[in-house]
Order: sequence, then structure tokens, then C-alpha cells
Amino acid sequence: MNGETGGEGVNTIVPLVGIPTIDSPLLVATKCMDDSERILIDSSPSVLDRYLKDNREIPSFELGGPRNKIFFDPSKTKCGVVTCGGLCPGINDVIRGIVHELYYMYGVENVYGIPYGLQGFIPSYRHSFIELTPSYVENIHELGGTILGSSRGSQDIGQIVDAIERSNINIMFFIGGDGTMKAASSVANEVLARGYRCSVIAIPKTIDNDISFVSKTFGFDTAVEEARKVIQCAHVESKGAPFGIGLVKLMGRDSGFIAAHAALACREANFVLVPEEDFDLDGDKGLLATLERRLKHRGHAVIVVAEGAGQKFFEDIPKQTDPSGNVRKGDIGLLLKERIGHYFHLQSIPVNLKYIDPSYVVRSVVANASDSIFCGFLAQMAVHAGMSGKTDMLIGLWNNEYVHIPIPLSVGERKKIDTNGSLWMSVKESTGQPVMKN
Amino acid sequence: MNGETGGEGVNTIVPLVGIPTIDSPLLVATKCMDDSERILIDSSPSVLDRYLKDNREIPSFELGGPRNKIFFDPSKTKCGVVTCGGLCPGINDVIRGIVHELYYMYGVENVYGIPYGLQGFIPSYRHSFIELTPSYVENIHELGGTILGSSRGSQDIGQIVDAIERSNINIMFFIGGDGTMKAASSVANEVLARGYRCSVIAIPKTIDNDISFVSKTFGFDTAVEEARKVIQCAHVESKGAPFGIGLVKLMGRDSGFIAAHAALACREANFVLVPEEDFDLDGDKGLLATLERRLKHRGHAVIVVAEGAGQKFFEDIPKQTDPSGNVRKGDIGLLLKERIGHYFHLQSIPVNLKYIDPSYVVRSVVANASDSIFCGFLAQMAVHAGMSGKTDMLIGLWNNEYVHIPIPLSVGERKKIDTNGSLWMSVKESTGQPVMKN
Amino acid sequence: MNGETGGEGVNTIVPLVGIPTIDSPLLVATKCMDDSERILIDSSPSVLDRYLKDNREIPSFELGGPRNKIFFDPSKTKCGVVTCGGLCPGINDVIRGIVHELYYMYGVENVYGIPYGLQGFIPSYRHSFIELTPSYVENIHELGGTILGSSRGSQDIGQIVDAIERSNINIMFFIGGDGTMKAASSVANEVLARGYRCSVIAIPKTIDNDISFVSKTFGFDTAVEEARKVIQCAHVESKGAPFGIGLVKLMGRDSGFIAAHAALACREANFVLVPEEDFDLDGDKGLLATLERRLKHRGHAVIVVAEGAGQKFFEDIPKQTDPSGNVRKGDIGLLLKERIGHYFHLQSIPVNLKYIDPSYVVRSVVANASDSIFCGFLAQMAVHAGMSGKTDMLIGLWNNEYVHIPIPLSVGERKKIDTNGSLWMSVKESTGQPVMKN
Amino acid sequence: MNGETGGEGVNTIVPLVGIPTIDSPLLVATKCMDDSERILIDSSPSVLDRYLKDNREIPSFELGGPRNKIFFDPSKTKCGVVTCGGLCPGINDVIRGIVHELYYMYGVENVYGIPYGLQGFIPSYRHSFIELTPSYVENIHELGGTILGSSRGSQDIGQIVDAIERSNINIMFFIGGDGTMKAASSVANEVLARGYRCSVIAIPKTIDNDISFVSKTFGFDTAVEEARKVIQCAHVESKGAPFGIGLVKLMGRDSGFIAAHAALACREANFVLVPEEDFDLDGDKGLLATLERRLKHRGHAVIVVAEGAGQKFFEDIPKQTDPSGNVRKGDIGLLLKERIGHYFHLQSIPVNLKYIDPSYVVRSVVANASDSIFCGFLAQMAVHAGMSGKTDMLIGLWNNEYVHIPIPLSVGERKKIDTNGSLWMSVKESTGQPVMKN
Repeated sequence: MNGETGGEGVNTIVPLVGIPTIDSPLLVATKCMDDSERILIDSSPSVLDRYLKDNREIPSFELGGPRNKIFFDPSKTKCGVVTCGGLCPGINDVIRGIVHELYYMYGVENVYGIPYGLQGFIPSYRHSFIELTPSYVENIHELGGTILGSSRGSQDIGQIVDAIERSNINIMFFIGGDGTMKAASSVANEVLARGYRCSVIAIPKTIDNDISFVSKTFGFDTAVEEARKVIQCAHVESKGAPFGIGLVKLMGRDSGFIAAHAALACREANFVLVPEEDFDLDGDKGLLATLERRLKHRGHAVIVVAEGAGQKFFEDIPKQTDPSGNVRKGDIGLLLKERIGHYFHLQSIPVNLKYIDPSYVVRSVVANASDSIFCGFLAQMAVHAGMSGKTDMLIGLWNNEYVHIPIPLSVGERKKIDTNGSLWMSVKESTGQPVMKN
Repeated sequence: MNGETGGEGVNTIVPLVGIPTIDSPLLVATKCMDDSERILIDSSPSVLDRYLKDNREIPSFELGGPRNKIFFDPSKTKCGVVTCGGLCPGINDVIRGIVHELYYMYGVENVYGIPYGLQGFIPSYRHSFIELTPSYVENIHELGGTILGSSRGSQDIGQIVDAIERSNINIMFFIGGDGTMKAASSVANEVLARGYRCSVIAIPKTIDNDISFVSKTFGFDTAVEEARKVIQCAHVESKGAPFGIGLVKLMGRDSGFIAAHAALACREANFVLVPEEDFDLDGDKGLLATLERRLKHRGHAVIVVAEGAGQKFFEDIPKQTDPSGNVRKGDIGLLLKERIGHYFHLQSIPVNLKYIDPSYVVRSVVANASDSIFCGFLAQMAVHAGMSGKTDMLIGLWNNEYVHIPIPLSVGERKKIDTNGSLWMSVKESTGQPVMKN
Repeated sequence: MNGETGGEGVNTIVPLVGIPTIDSPLLVATKCMDDSERILIDSSPSVLDRYLKDNREIPSFELGGPRNKIFFDPSKTKCGVVTCGGLCPGINDVIRGIVHELYYMYGVENVYGIPYGLQGFIPSYRHSFIELTPSYVENIHELGGTILGSSRGSQDIGQIVDAIERSNINIMFFIGGDGTMKAASSVANEVLARGYRCSVIAIPKTIDNDISFVSKTFGFDTAVEEARKVIQCAHVESKGAPFGIGLVKLMGRDSGFIAAHAALACREANFVLVPEEDFDLDGDKGLLATLERRLKHRGHAVIVVAEGAGQKFFEDIPKQTDPSGNVRKGDIGLLLKERIGHYFHLQSIPVNLKYIDPSYVVRSVVANASDSIFCGFLAQMAVHAGMSGKTDMLIGLWNNEYVHIPIPLSVGERKKIDTNGSLWMSVKESTGQPVMKN
Repeated sequence: MNGETGGEGVNTIVPLVGIPTIDSPLLVATKCMDDSERILIDSSPSVLDRYLKDNREIPSFELGGPRNKIFFDPSKTKCGVVTCGGLCPGINDVIRGIVHELYYMYGVENVYGIPYGLQGFIPSYRHSFIELTPSYVENIHELGGTILGSSRGSQDIGQIVDAIERSNINIMFFIGGDGTMKAASSVANEVLARGYRCSVIAIPKTIDNDISFVSKTFGFDTAVEEARKVIQCAHVESKGAPFGIGLVKLMGRDSGFIAAHAALACREANFVLVPEEDFDLDGDKGLLATLERRLKHRGHAVIVVAEGAGQKFFEDIPKQTDPSGNVRKGDIGLLLKERIGHYFHLQSIPVNLKYIDPSYVVRSVVANASDSIFCGFLAQMAVHAGMSGKTDMLIGLWNNEYVHIPIPLSVGERKKIDTNGSLWMSVKESTGQPVMKN
């Protein structure tokens, strides 16, 4: 994963809303820690040597976990949880984990759920906060989606902070993607500017797994599991008819991690198209001619395409954006369906093309075991961080360790597949696909 | 189910290719039977009374099962299996069951798989028959689809019978839908006309479950299981956003059985639209206004639509047909997506519509336990019927009994949901949907 | 299924707590019915002929469904639901279905859940009734087990009826097995004797599927699905080691339906042992020598045994009973494990025996789609029956129709596999197992 | 994970059977590498500082991946694959991955499967090698277990090497646990001693995930997924009866990783008992009294116990070993079942204890998506290592990187849960269980 991040010159000091001075109630049962424990961002000896040679500080992250001293008095603490953006497996596990950790471990009894994302803070939408008790959240991990509801798009930061102050919230947990992280950071700054004491902790959520400095986001593993089933169906369909082609469109706006992983999980895909690797349709090396050779050689083919792949084919079409401000992608799945059909029609090769766009099915399911465990840890780490008074940070997973990452460090730039790295190399080995550029 | 069929004046004599005279090898281990065992088609006392009063013969079906006497000498018998039309969970279970029953129970060692549907009989397609041995089929029930491949559309009956004669096939098993049944019946007649002795046995396959005189077709149960998951996802999506609408399109060209059953299995759908019940979009009683009332009352809604529903909205568009000769349906899913979006846009109600078309995902999966059991019985019954020299018949399930049904009796008319029966009544209770006609 | 029941001389008049006179609120939206619609119990023409010849009334069941007239005024009606005995997939679906049908279709708002089975009626246990509202039961079908809890064993009928009277319950729904049916019937009689008006409706629950006059009980399909997975694992284990033997014990105290169906669903079992067919262990035809031949021929074997099979091997051991009064079975799984190990040890054949007792795993899961649909219908039919004032009856499924069966007709005798019928014949074909009696 | 290993003084030079001099056929399509790329074993800055201060070399592992130069000429290379010990999800994925990588990427066509573990090498067992072609392995990843069969126990190293020489095998892949690793290392040494050129590459397999210097073994993730389902069932059972106790025994001879992870995935367990943490049964702080308090407070409880936990309770019983030489554990599940039953019986508290031992069900299933991906990488890395002439090494995963680890470094010592680390801390938070020592 080293190749996927810059990793240099990183400022990893996590800001505080105040110095923690209260003995943690966890001290009785658990080994607690202070802020000195860290891990290196890049652990290859060659990178290390470079830092040592230059006598520069080696970039590292602060480890997550329960602190000896906490900042907020549990008996008086009020917390809020908000979930924003698209659904993702495991959101309810995170909500449940936060409520349970606060209640059972720290003795914090007041946790509010903010309904329908950032809308929930804004009075004009007339949504009411939900009281999140252990019994209310008892079985929510067996439901997909988010019990709080979600929404896309930004809201006025001032109004959000007004709502936080009005409800006396001391720790605000934001679960969301890149846009939500930015909003959370703005909220953290506005809160500090007002002199109000509220810790802002973010838990990154993106089914595309494309957040910088976060080696895996929750829900991704489950999404890959579901996507694998779909590719398997496409494979079955492709083998079930003469000149059968199974075409599957998967999520992945800016990065093809789901497509790549699902293809490796199923190993039946013959072409994996991702935003990170350019490809042509026409010409002898292009997808269409390559596909024709494959069909004539083997009789069937499976194509997996990430939604953000091949956007150059839509360059002439005016851009649109969704309510989150994301640029709407051209529908590469439908384009491929049409272009492939047209190509073989012209050559009178009677292909049987089956197009599958599983869309929301991949993300609305319940988290698998691995994601549930992961969500549980994220929730615990977020609560520890919040109780100890940290702010403007997110919980990340780095080299199998939970770490504190300042939000400004992570937002803005998406993580992408390194097309020279082992993941993409493995996809190319598994599919046997050539570079499809003339 | 009584209301679903006419049931009167039924000729249920199943034709033979010859009189069975050989003692069945199953006699040693199993209780065998003769052709006198039957069950009534309609078992309501009131229908019965009518027949008794009129002194007419009460319609009944011949029961399936092993016969005391068989027609074909197992040591010399050759069999063929062909799979036609769209995929359906359980096809491989049926193929495996036929091979195992022939080999282990009757001692028939030569079974050919005809590849890619009816194409496989026609020399110009240059497909080769596949030898189906017990070891070849050992694990195929763990794969979706059909290991033989399939194709749509009719082929020349004469050439099919030529191929059957050329390969000395004595029992030909056709697994397919309405069109395949018709072809099988023509083959049976042509074989008899030529004086060649070949039994033609059909196993009806349609994921839509719409074959007359067949209370359930294999794969349907599995398809409903998969469809339920998709509706559940749509429900999660609809609750995950303000004014969330989950819209799911399911299979069902002429009948809405999958949509109706899946909605009853999940119980989260608020609207189920099927070909059997007309509905309007506009007007105060139409779907759009009804949906608006639902949204304002409850904040979210789930709509399940069978692909054959609402075809009246496409009346102006010229009709097209697929290679099987089925009329291509207008895409009611996309039409609803557009019309709903437009309707609420005009009213400035910011709905969040999530459209899911799972398409092939519902039918390419492995059969569930119930369908596997069912497929095993169908295969055994088909082999018993074939070995005893019956022809031009299909294996049906009626009142939980496996029965022999002459193909001409079943083909041509599709089974449909009785909108006055308990299934549809239950759907209406579960959804709470009104009759949406102005 | 005909062979499984006597079917003659059956009294199928369902008793009433009073004559229904109120127009059903369902009349507006739904086609309602009266009590004259029936179906024959046995629909084979030969049985029919016998009745006609003797001029006797042909036995039939009253059909379930909404009636034109109901007995209880919905606005004043209070209902209770109790769940008894062992867990079974789908109980929560039934509870949810009852609450929804009462609330949304009839307008009945007061439904009590009686906790922990019959214990819940008895004051000394100090359990409190639970108010079952639509929102309380909204997601319970996504949880296994019963949200009400359950218990085994009988309680004082007088105290039960006291509790029903005290709470003004007008319709009492009992979900349970044979013992619960008997208790429900006694409650119905005691209620009538006291002149109190309370309808008693039972929904039979037994994972073993062994209730007379009920062709399938809910949860059975799901249990078979789970059991199939376990047999599949046993098969994998048996093939994974030299002389591998996979031995699986499944539920089935008095009948082997789960074992038989699961074996047909997986088709990898080589021996299926059920209570209905006697077998020897020793001797040349016994299980052990037969198993040895199988192992030497094929190298591995899978044995599926129902817990009630082979009880003759425990005849010398004193009998014990569980709290429900069921005789505790000797553990045939462990006995086989020991006897097989001993047998091959003596012969120095190094078998690898893997014993799997999935026990509760088969029954604690969430209902599959088919069972969920089934449970929904059972709940609706039970509510229709209760609202129309019927009592001392259960809801059964017969020839794919929901019927009313007087409880006394069904209890006492268990349904068993007909070892001359098609189910067992199919198991023998699939396994290839001989009759293992010397 | 740092705390789990010593990490100091590690010799990570991987031995070779010869210097690779042939240009890799992968060079055309893929970025290849040489042996200089490494990652640090421990990446915490404090450990790093210690090494720098002492001026010692910082321990690191060689990275896996395709090399520029390979040692074996693909056109003449023969390979062998053997699978040993207990089953584990994903073995067939690894076999398939090795065959595909050798065939499609390197052009190696001769791959033998050695049947039934190390037995397969020994002539007296009379097993024949299996030719592993791409078509033979095409669908094996959809089957659980190992298509090669397996066996436990050691065999004569000389005879194993004889068989390797006799078959001209140049790369021998061993898939197995600790004992198999030791055998593989001995084989590597004997091969070198004889001057025969055969690379020995091991892929560690243990469902318990307890191999040193390997942060995760394949199949573990799937096993946790299955184990979670079982705990969920135990939870359902425990809530389904008054004073319900669900007791689940899971795999984990020397380490409780499956128990701990499954408990975190489900979050319904109240007690997790593992080999790494001692506990008492009796006394006020012991399990029984703690369980009683839990039952009285909450009415139900779930206990998850790893098979290797609480072995001190069997100290008086003579030790036995299995064919692999593992000491047979006392059955802690049955012991707890008896002791808990006895304890509450004495106090007349009518508990309902449901004991579940899923045993082989957890390990015989097909690999989930995450494990399939993992297995694919392991296979590729193993082939790269073998082709480049490395030997006496295993493929490990360390800080998300695939690395080469000398076998002698890893064997002998089992990885264990650090009871002061974040995993166990999280288990204790999730369960709320105290230290149960008097």
C-alpha cells in the first residue's frame, strides 16, 4: 500500500478542544495509554533510510485507543451522531458501537441521533433528534442502511454549530465521505472559534474505499462480497449462451477498488475496466477487437466496469452534478452495452450480451462479519478519541492499526489504484487482459 | 389454485411410443405402479358435484412414478438432454438427476447432452454432443445456469429428428418453456410419423411460473428468495433518505408471480404492479397521486413492478420480438422512474428515487434446497416416464403430486394471478395498495 | 401425501364461540366468503369411488379466508399471542403477521404478547404481557427465534383461562406443537364452559413437520435449507480424508422428514436413517458391514441420522422425559459414532469419522422467503378465523389450500414418512442404500 | 499486532536452490522486481529508535512478487501441490491459483496434485498423483475442502524426497499447518543435501490463525463469518427461554482468535473464554457465580469458549495425541455444560442451557470473497517465489504486504492473543466480562 500515498512531510498532530485531566473510568478494567504511541506511515527500509540520511522526522500517526486521562466528565456529557451521503454496509454497526461504548464503558447516557444527515441540524427541515439508548440500538446491526437516515449535500456551518450548541452536544460524531469530512472540519473550527467545547470526530465512510491515508473503509469488504455474486451470475449467463457476454457495472466513481477486488474474488472476469487505466474502444488493440478475439477463442467473456471508467467517451456531453456536488458520470455501462452490440451486429456475430447493473444491491445489505468487527473497532476508537478531547480528526486504519488522522490531511485527494502495484498486476494476471491502448 | 385453471373437459391420456413389456429393474428394490393411479384436477366438492350431477367423467391426471413394466431395454437405450430458453435456478440439478437416475437405477449408460439448446441438433452450428457420465455431472448442481448452454428460438423439426435418429436416441428430454414444449410436441409427432421409437419427455422451465396445469415450476422458489433480497435493499434505500422511493423491476412477462411472492416474502413493498391488474398513472386514483399521499404520510415507499405490467403505456410504440418469438415489452421500470421523477419535480417535492433492476441476478444463482429437492423429483419422474415408453408429455406438479400432462394440453395459454384469489388478496392486504384506476 | 393420512370418517365441523353477525370491514376492498367452500381431503378417484359407492359423505375441510360476517367488534376486541415449545424459523413472521392483519385490516389495536409460553399466563412466574403494536413488530421478522420467548411444559388450564378473562382477551392465538394444541383445545373448552366469549385459534409449529392433516409446517423449509448446508460440509469432510466418514445428526424425534428432505436437497448422503425404517447395525446386511462395503468401493461415505432413529438400541436404558413430557431419546448420533469407530478399529481400517451435530443452528435462523410467505398466510388465515368467531381449531395447509382443522382431529398422532411412498423411494434411489435388516 | 511477536534479531534471508538467471516471461506485461524490496517487521517509532540507538540492523522481511530473473525454465518445469492437516476454507482457491499462475503466466504445464497429504508421496499407500490442468481446476473454488484430499501425521522424509525425485518435481508447494511446515523444511534440506534442484514453498494453513509472523492465515475470515452465525443462533436460543444460556464451542486449540473475532462480529456474547486467559469456575469471582449474576440481572447469557480454554480443569486426566501429534484437548464445552447445569440445579434455578458445537461446519464451507482474494494472492506469490528458485520459505502477510519468511523462523511457536492488546480489550468491552479469577 506504500505506493498509494505520498507519505512525506505529514503533519500528524491531532488538535484538542482542551487538555484531558479526568481519570478515565476504563482505567479499572483496561490498560490505557497516552498519546506517545505511534506507527510509521511508510515502513519500507528504503524510505526510512532517506529520512534518516536527511535527518528529517519520520512521518508517523498517533495510535487510537483509550487514554489514561479524558477531557469530558461522562456524567455531564452529551453526544451526537450523524450519518451522511450514500448508504454503506455497517453504518448501523458503527452507530450501535458508539452508543454501547459511551453507555457501558464511559457511563455517558445522552446520545442523540441527528436524522437525515446534515439536514437534521437545520431547523427548517423540521426533523427531530432521536434518543439513542442501548435498547433502541440493540438489534440495528441486523438491518442494512442507517436507522438515522441520510442525505446528500452541504448545509450552513453556522446553523449546524447553532444546533450543536443548542443541544449542549460535547462530542459530535460524523459518519460520511469526503464532503462530510470537510463539513466536520469546518464545524470543528467554528466550534473552537466560538469558544464552545465540542469534540468533532469523523469516521470515514465510502463504499469506493478511496479515502487517502485510510487503507480500508468499512463496508468495502461486504460490497466486494456482493459484487462477487453478481460477477458470478454474469459468468453463468455468459457461459449459458453461444457467444455469451456478461457485462457488469460496479460502483467506483474515481477509483476501481470494488471492481478490482470483486474480480479477484471471483476470478471469472476477463476484462476489468477502471478509472485509473485508460483504454480505447476502437482500433486493433482496443476493447472491441480484443473482446472479439477472446470470444472467437473461448466462446464467452465477462467484463467488469467501474462506473467512473472510460469517462473520456463522454467528453462532449455537458457536465452535471448531484446534490453532494459530485460530477455525474456518463453511464459507461450503457455505453459499452450499445457499442459492443453495435460492433458485433456490424460483423454479423450473434453475441448474447447480458448487462447487469446491481446498483444499490451492493451497498444496502447488512455488514459481513469482517466489516462488523471493523465497525465495532472504529466506534470504540472514535469514542476514546472524543472522550479524550481530540477534535478535527478521523479514525483511520493503517498497517492494521487504528490511528488518529487530522481531517485536513485526508480530504480533497482520492486514493486510487496504483496501476504499477500488486493489486492491479494481480488483476491483469487473473484476467489476462492486455493494455487496450492503440 | 383451483381458480387458476379451467379444469373441465380435459383429455389426460398420455400417448405411448409402444407398449411396455420389460420388467423394470427397479422392481427389486422399490414399489412400482401401473397407469391406473390418478388424482383429481379440481378437488372442491362443489365442482365434483357438478360432474356427478351431469354424469360426466371427473377430470384427473395420471400419476408419475416408476412402472412395473418398461418399454426400453436399459442396456441398449440412449438418451439425450437439451436445455432451451433463459436460465433458471436448478437446470443443472435436473440434468444431474436424469443422468444419475438413468445410470444408477436403470443401468442406462449412454446419455448425451445437446449443447446450446435446439441449435445443438442442427449440424450447421457445429456444436458437438457432450457425454454425460455420473462423474461428469457430479458437482454441477453447485453451479448456476446450465452446463449444456442454451439458446432461444426455434429450429427445423426435421433436422432435430434427423439428429435424434442419427444418434440412436431413444428418450429425449426437453427442458424449456412454452416454445420448447411446442417444439418437443412436434418432435414427438414427427418421430411417430417416421416410425422411429423415441420417447419425448418435457420438463417445463419458466422462472415466471406461468405454465398452465403446473402449480409450480422449478427455480421459482429460488428466484423469489433472490428477489426478496432486492426488495429488502430497496426498502433500506427508501428509509435511508428523506422522501425515499425504492423502485424494483422484477421478471414476469405475462404474470406477476415473482413480484407477488417476493413482496409477500419481504412485506416491505407498498405497491406491487403486475400484468394481471390494470392501473393508471395519472388522476386522483392513479399511482402517482397515491404514491404522493403515501410519501406525505409515511416519508418513504417501495414499489415492485413486474416487467410485463403497465404495457398499455407503450401502445403507441411499434412492437419488437426476441429470438424466441416473445414480444419485447416496453421497459416499465424506466418509464416509472421517469414519470415519478417528473411528477414530483413539478411539485417541487425532493424525492430520492432509487431504481433497482436486478435482471439476471435473480435467475443465475444456484438452486435453493427446496428447488433442488423439486428438481430431483422432476428428473426421476421424467426418467420413469421415458423408460416406460410414454411420449409427448410433460412432468407437472399438481396438488403436491407429480403427474403426467399431455404437452398439447398445457402449451399456448399462460397461467396468471387470479386477482380475486387469495394470493392477490394477500398482496393487497400486505401492501395496503388500493385499486389504482380512475 | 394421500398415503400419509387415514382421511376417512373425519368430522370437520369447526366449532364457534358464537354466530358472526357483523359485516366485515374487509368487504370494502376484498372478496369475502362464507363457510361453504371446502376441499376434499383425499383427491384420488379410487378413494372417491369408494365413498360414492357406499353413499357416504366425502371427507373435506373448510377453507380458510376472510368471512363476510365477523363475530367480534374490532373496536372492542383484545387479542393475545403466545409461543410455546422449541424455536422454529418464522415464529416472529407469524407474530408480526397477526399484529399487522389485526391492526391494518380489521382495526384491532389491542394485541398482547404473552411472554415465555404458557408460563406467561401464570401469575407466580411474574412475567408481564407485552403490548404488540405495528411499530413494535416492524423489524422482528429479521430476527430468529421468538421475541416473546417460549417455554416447555403444561400449565394449569384454569389459571390460563383466568388470565385470559382478567385481560379481556377475545381471541387467543396459540403457536406451538402437539402439547400446545392439546392445551389450546382444553382452554377453548374451559372458556366455553365458563360462558366467556373467546376464540381459540392454533397455528401448528413443529420443525419436524410431523403434525397430522398438515402437509407442511412453517419453518420446515428453512430448517431443510440449513440442514443441507451441514450435509454438504459432512460430504466435504468425508472426501477430504482417506476412508472419510461424515456423520450428521438432524432433528426428527418421531419422523425423519428433515433428514429425508435435506438428503434429497444435497444428494450426497449415502445412508439416511429415520425412525420410520428399522435397521440393524450388525450382521452382513447391517449398517456397519454395508458401510464397510461402501468405503472399500468409493473411499468415503456420508450418513444422515434423525435423532429418533434406531431407538431400539437403547431399550435397556431407563426412559426419561423433558419438561414438555416428550420421552428423551437415546443419543443415536453418539452411539453410531462409537459403534462405527469400534467396528473399523477392530478391523484395522483407519477411518476418519467426522461427527456433526448442528443442533439448534438448524432452527434458530431467520425464515427463508418461502417460509416467510407461508407464515404471512398462516397469520392472515388465523386472524380471519378468529374474527369470525371460530374456536378450537388450527390453520392447516392441505393440497396448497389453507384450511380449518378441529384441533382434536389433529393432535395425538404424529405424521410419519410412508416408507412405501415416493419421498422415501426417492431417498433410497438417491442414496442407493439397501434395506439394512438381516 | 506488534505486541504479538518478538520481532528482534530476526534472520530474514530466504535460501535459494540456485541463482536465477533466466528472464521472466512476465517481464513483457508486468513490472517485476528484485530481492532488495523489504518492509520493517515492527514499524513503531519507539522500537525503531532502539535499533538506531544500538546501531543494529532493523529487522525486515523480503517482499513477495514476480522477479526479473527466474531459476527454472518454464518449458521443462514440473510442480507438485500437496494439502495436509485439517480442512480450511480456501484450499481449493490456492490450488486453482497455483495451477492458473503456473500455466497462464509462466507457461508451466505439468502440475501434479499429491493426494491425501503426505501419504500421497509414500508408495505403500497406493495413491496416484492427479494431473492438475486449468480445466480440471476450473470450478474447484466453488467446492469446500480440498479436491486433493488430506491426511494428518508425518511421513518418512526420505521417501517423500524419493517421490519428488522420481517424478522430477522442481517446485513443491506444501499447504498445511505447523507440522507440515516442519516437514517441508526437512524436505527442503534433504533435497539440497542430495544435490537435487527442487524449490520448497509453503503456504501456511491453520484455521486458528496462530502462525507466528503471519498476521492472517487464509480461511480465518470465512471461519469467523460462520462462527458468527452460530453465536447469533445461541443468542436467539438464550433469549427464547427463561434463564436461557447459549453455550458455543469454537475451534482454537492454542489461541482464541476465532472465538474473539466471532464474538466481536456478533456482539451478543457475554463471556468469551480463550486459552490465553486463565479463569476459575468456582468462587465468587469465578465463571459460575458471575454467570448467575448476569442471569439474574438480564435473564439470559451467551458463552463462547475456544476448545483450548480451561485445560487446567483436565489436569488429572492422562494426555492423548491425535495422528498429527497434537495433544488432544479435554472437551471444555461438555465440561462447562455439565458444570453449569450442576451449579444451577443445586440452586434450583431452572436454567435452559443450549449447547452448540458446530465443529466442522465452520471449516468445510467455501471461502468468502475476502479469503478468495487472499488465496489468489498467496498462490501467485508462492509461484513467483518458486519460479525464482527460493526454497525453505513460506508466504506470509505482514502489514498488508506479502512477504517471504524462512520456515524455521515461523514454526514451533504459536501466535497468541495478547491479553493486553486492543483485540482482547475490545472483547472485554464488548462482553463486559470481568477477570474471572479469585
